[in-house]
Amino acid sequence: MTETVLSSADKEVVIGFDRPFVMIGERINPTGRRLLAEEMKNDDFSRVQADAIAQTNAGAHMLDVNAGIPLADEPALLAKAVQLVQAVTDVPLSIDSSIVEALEAGLAVYEGKAMVNSVTGEDEVMERVLPLVARYGAAVVAISNDETGISEDPDVRFEVAKRIVNRAADHGIPAADVLVDPLVMPIGAMGTAGQQVFQLVRRLRDELGVNTTCGASNVSFGLPNRTNITGTFLSMAIGAGMTSAIMNPLHEEVVRSVMAADVLAGNDPNCAAWIRANRDPNAPAGTRAGRKGRRRRPAQ
Amino acid sequence: MTETVLSSADKEVVIGFDRPFVMIGERINPTGRRLLAEEMKNDDFSRVQADAIAQTNAGAHMLDVNAGIPLADEPALLAKAVQLVQAVTDVPLSIDSSIVEALEAGLAVYEGKAMVNSVTGEDEVMERVLPLVARYGAAVVAISNDETGISEDPDVRFEVAKRIVNRAADHGIPAADVLVDPLVMPIGAMGTAGQQVFQLVRRLRDELGVNTTCGASNVSFGLPNRTNITGTFLSMAIGAGMTSAIMNPLHEEVVRSVMAADVLAGNDPNCAAWIRANRDPNAPAGTRAGRKGRRRRPAQ
Repeated sequence: MTETVLSSADKEVVIGFDRPFVMIGERINPTGRRLLAEEMKNDDFSRVQADAIAQTNAGAHMLDVNAGIPLADEPALLAKAVQLVQAVTDVPLSIDSSIVEALEAGLAVYEGKAMVNSVTGEDEVMERVLPLVARYGAAVVAISNDETGISEDPDVRFEVAKRIVNRAADHGIPAADVLVDPLVMPIGAMGTAGQQVFQLVRRLRDELGVNTTCGASNVSFGLPNRTNITGTFLSMAIGAGMTSAIMNPLHEEVVRSVMAADVLAGNDPNCAAWIRANRDPNAPAGTRAGRKGRRRRPAQ
Repeated sequence: MTETVLSSADKEVVIGFDRPFVMIGERINPTGRRLLAEEMKNDDFSRVQADAIAQTNAGAHMLDVNAGIPLADEPALLAKAVQLVQAVTDVPLSIDSSIVEALEAGLAVYEGKAMVNSVTGEDEVMERVLPLVARYGAAVVAISNDETGISEDPDVRFEVAKRIVNRAADHGIPAADVLVDPLVMPIGAMGTAGQQVFQLVRRLRDELGVNTTCGASNVSFGLPNRTNITGTFLSMAIGAGMTSAIMNPLHEEVVRSVMAADVLAGNDPNCAAWIRANRDPNAPAGTRAGRKGRRRRPAQ
């Protein structure tokens, strides 16, 4: 049974088959958030910290932290963001950058076992990121594209994922510490995007035995009622075996879909989390789900 | 590609792989509806007709009609209900009874190609129901239990389903006219109920090549926020390959989950149905979905 253990100084989260789905908050990311980008660049991290607190209150089990701002000193910004988020929340973090120096700066200040987001199947990227992941004893998100780009063929994406898992092993990183991201395209642009992901997730689980994650919100890009599409996508992905996702925990419909899918996948024993979260009609679903979800995770 | 064609006098509905999911309205059923039972027994079918209209307006592509009232003349009641429903709606019907004489009475008055709900794997039942289905050129719902009851083992249920499909073939009924019901148990009573159904549906589709249906609402029995559980169940079942269900189309969340799952399964080309249904924020989702969904089905 594959288990990926992530931690902060005080708390562990386990991503695994036959466990409740792990929701990773997506909000701390300046991409498309001009105000946040401006503030971070000016050394103002108040919104970053507020977003961290809001997302964990809404039920996020982990938080993704990204500081990708053009023309900014991304390593310094990411390190600072990681430190300031860890100062106000105790959930493990996903340190998110396409710049290796920024990943390293984030890892250097991180307390606990982080998730590194991400490595691709490109040789040069693997040879720079994987030693870093090994040195810090982190887990890593493997994105199934390589030098040739993103294939529309799930079999090709599977092979790229397999190559990353094998290369990680060469660096001493166990398969349990590699979470494959099958790459979620907007369903409005590519009608096969859902089926591709579901098929790939099933193979990744059955044949490669790895945990999976994805950027879920992308699936509904451009469509009306996005939260319904994203929530339904996640429930179907959970049905196919996906074990975590980077998503917006402030969207209650999405959180409810994830919790209902946990019930139906048999990963919410006695429906206890669902019943607790839905007992008090006045409390927001996410908040209750999150508190309970976190308490339920065993410390190791 | 398996296609089950059902019809009324004026309209055809096709249940099939890679097509939009077919929603069969569950409301015309006196079980647990004391007032409706009382009225039907007293020859008052006004509520039956109102329920028929409300469900088709809400998006049902077909309607299930059941007249199972203790100590009543079920064959006469079912025949009358079928006629009166056909008088006010033009969607194909599922004629639903455990009494073979009632199925026959319903079929005798039905205009079009009906769905007969249901036959089990019990020899005596098969030998009484299947000749009837063959004689009227109907399709039939096959429930995967037999003399030994309902197995918790999906493999046993698969074998029962296979036996019914083979026996139907002996009577000249093609596999395309057998829709297997994997039997949906309440998830609150049996935590594996969801996974059992999803596994079985995948095998029924991949190995037996048959369409599937189920009574969906049962899955959420006893839980809070039932519509979220039922809707999420249906989206996961669609992900596993289920092609129709008997459900409540008056529950908008459930209809929305089905439509979103159609998008994500790649069965809503260009997301056209989703976009249309979600364009006008003032119209109820189900209504809009239904109108469009029915128009989209090709006449044959």
